[in-house]
Amino acid sequence: MSTAAPEIQKTARDGAFGNAVALSCRECGNRVELGPSYACPECFGPLEVAYDFPAITHEEIAAGPANIWRYKALLPVPTDIEQSPNTEPGFTRLLRADNLARELGIADLWVKDDSTNPTNSFKDRVVACALSAARELGAKVFACPSTGNLANAVAAAGARAGIRTVVFIPSNLEQPKQVNSAVFTDSLVAVEGNYDDVNKLAQEIAAEEEGWAFVNVNVRPFYAEGSKTLGYEIAEQLGWRLPDQIVIPVASGSQLTKVHKAFGELIELGLVEDKPYRIFGAQAEGCGPVATAYKAGVDAIRPVKPDTIAKSLAIGNPADGIYVLDIARATGGAVEQVTDDEIREGIVLLARTEGVFTETAGGTTTAVLKKLVETGQLDTSLETVIINTGHGLKTLDAVSGRVGPRATIPASYDAFEAAGLA
Amino acid sequence: MSTAAPEIQKTARDGAFGNAVALSCRECGNRVELGPSYACPECFGPLEVAYDFPAITHEEIAAGPANIWRYKALLPVPTDIEQSPNTEPGFTRLLRADNLARELGIADLWVKDDSTNPTNSFKDRVVACALSAARELGAKVFACPSTGNLANAVAAAGARAGIRTVVFIPSNLEQPKQVNSAVFTDSLVAVEGNYDDVNKLAQEIAAEEEGWAFVNVNVRPFYAEGSKTLGYEIAEQLGWRLPDQIVIPVASGSQLTKVHKAFGELIELGLVEDKPYRIFGAQAEGCGPVATAYKAGVDAIRPVKPDTIAKSLAIGNPADGIYVLDIARATGGAVEQVTDDEIREGIVLLARTEGVFTETAGGTTTAVLKKLVETGQLDTSLETVIINTGHGLKTLDAVSGRVGPRATIPASYDAFEAAGLA
Ligand SMILES: Cc1ncc(COP(=O)(O)O)c(C=O)c1O
Ligand SMILES: Cc1ncc(COP(=O)(O)O)c(C=O)c1O
Ligand SMILES: [Zn+2]
Ligand SMILES: [Zn+2]
Repeated sequence: MSTAAPEIQKTARDGAFGNAVALSCRECGNRVELGPSYACPECFGPLEVAYDFPAITHEEIAAGPANIWRYKALLPVPTDIEQSPNTEPGFTRLLRADNLARELGIADLWVKDDSTNPTNSFKDRVVACALSAARELGAKVFACPSTGNLANAVAAAGARAGIRTVVFIPSNLEQPKQVNSAVFTDSLVAVEGNYDDVNKLAQEIAAEEEGWAFVNVNVRPFYAEGSKTLGYEIAEQLGWRLPDQIVIPVASGSQLTKVHKAFGELIELGLVEDKPYRIFGAQAEGCGPVATAYKAGVDAIRPVKPDTIAKSLAIGNPADGIYVLDIARATGGAVEQVTDDEIREGIVLLARTEGVFTETAGGTTTAVLKKLVETGQLDTSLETVIINTGHGLKTLDAVSGRVGPRATIPASYDAFEAAGLA
Repeated sequence: MSTAAPEIQKTARDGAFGNAVALSCRECGNRVELGPSYACPECFGPLEVAYDFPAITHEEIAAGPANIWRYKALLPVPTDIEQSPNTEPGFTRLLRADNLARELGIADLWVKDDSTNPTNSFKDRVVACALSAARELGAKVFACPSTGNLANAVAAAGARAGIRTVVFIPSNLEQPKQVNSAVFTDSLVAVEGNYDDVNKLAQEIAAEEEGWAFVNVNVRPFYAEGSKTLGYEIAEQLGWRLPDQIVIPVASGSQLTKVHKAFGELIELGLVEDKPYRIFGAQAEGCGPVATAYKAGVDAIRPVKPDTIAKSLAIGNPADGIYVLDIARATGGAVEQVTDDEIREGIVLLARTEGVFTETAGGTTTAVLKKLVETGQLDTSLETVIINTGHGLKTLDAVSGRVGPRATIPASYDAFEAAGLA
């Protein structure tokens, strides 16, 4: 197995990756040069970006734009990143969720709503960072295997950046997510199989083809850092404070591990007070390998064959699953899973209480929040945040059978009255 | 015809409407008290909000939140508006559109992208202002007739605010817009007829029912002010400067007239330099009553029966159409219309060049921009802004026959190579 794409470019210009200084192995600590590598040459462990941060103040951050680049000093991007065409994601709403809190019996609840990102999921954050790396490394093709949202984000960002995109999806993907990629790129490729099959194909292509930057394969270390901005924003929007508890959906597990990394960095940099926080992972029962391992009390994750309406979370063999387990256990959190019906109910619950229309992933997170309360795993007296990572318009079918017009009437006041609407 | 809803509440608390001082008749200048009135008791002309503005600085605005409430001093809302649950819309991206500019031969082009608002259209802005008025006036029901987007915004905002919502739509509305309302409210009402029929029904109900605030009927003056924030944001995001030209879609014509009002207020308040700007309106040929009047050089607008895929713009009898005509003519702009096929092409053009997936309304605006260039009506050397007012996921069918996967392949590298994707 090759640990670097054969031929993106070997060296990048000075400052290409901002304050990042190396890629470091999550398992053995071995360091390698910043570049299109994603597995440790010593132990095959995953590589992540290591930094040498300068002092950073709240004011410097607040003076930045209302998007993720306000945190550029904490990301592997050049200082002039705003000048390069990108989708300008982030700085999405952190909404107080008093109605949902009341409904569930939680004292203090917030929804971080990433469904209002440029392509309506948190994936715009990671793709913006991957695009910068792809550009700095001289990639010719910007690509990904995707459960849907990533495809949307890659295709859109590539269109804006003027780089060729090729995005690979499971052929049974929801139609809105297909159209929402195909509208941006002429190279949407449907692959017969599930996400794990698509991902394997992408790894093969990355190992063979010159100049292909697969955002979540060979530039994955850069890509993954984008999710840290969710953690930064939540802290900043709470008034530079960490929440006590946070519930995050888990597919590969990347987002959850990076929110944890972000909180740690903020503490280290003195931007927030050091305090304990609990991280909870949310999965669907039809694809809950991490939740299953968590409940069994084991360290190894047994891959599953996904069967759930939460297609965006349908990764049966999650790359960062073991780190999710570690973090949930170390912080006093948990990893929980819910049924497809609970997911549908979660979507409607969040919509009816907070006016936020989430996709199946957010339905999963909302339903897991409910289940964590009901099972006593969540402390309802503590300040809690849930992340809504995607938009309900992309998974319409999940609820289109459950909600609809209350009545269809002729255009007359009498009909209005007769329908009992007055 | 009654000019006020019978019984919302007659008087509101001090400061309920911020710096607004009266409702003033657009035709005769007659002033009436701030309240649930929308037509002049003297001449039946439309009422709009009049203010007594204090001095306001760029710094005060910049110190506000990253949503429309940063402009609260310029809106008919109380100073503590952020504390009342609302969807927190606005401060959406103003994107440089260099690719689209190159494609069309325009020197300097921006896209104001309102598709990333809470319910993915500019309607969240107007609804947030209407919600404040409804609350201050003691309304019991928050309602609207809608071409789709407004229904989404009202249903979501009402859910969050905990007020009963009833939203009326034409029964042939796109399914995504139906689900995107029904998920928030149990009172989505489909009406047999087109928007103008639905609107007439709403006016009847508003005249009969106690405590119903129809956002775009009896609290329309407050509602309409929300669109001013589009103008404020564009100016602020350009560095407190007005663009030379702006292209805005037209249904009732409210948005266009309010962007013009906003630019005028900014000049008056000394927040931007006084300079000429041209305002262009965009309609679909299948519902182009304002464009038709513009081209004919007449002042009166002849209502039409809409027949276009741009359903969100399908208002055949536009309330503010004559003001759109006035403004287009007075500023040296124009009102132009395009075919449904041009609208579909406009959607794909904006997506492929700028990574923005717009709905049919934005397809209309993009296609009109193109036509204005081709017909020499737009000065391609001047700085130009187009407003993308809504999201493509709500009108998927408009393009789902045009774009799709390039290939469906088995999950093997050989299949990838055979498909000519390498
Ligand atoms: C909407 C949504 N939420 C959450 C996730 C989980 O992301 P991760 O792979 O980082 O765990 C995904 C991944 O595709 C997603 O699309
Ligand atoms: C997406 C979209 N754009 C533009 C408009 C036009 O709005 P107005 O009625 O203010 O002209 C509408 C109105 O429904 C709309 O939904
Ligand atoms: Zn290692
Ligand atoms: Zn009058």
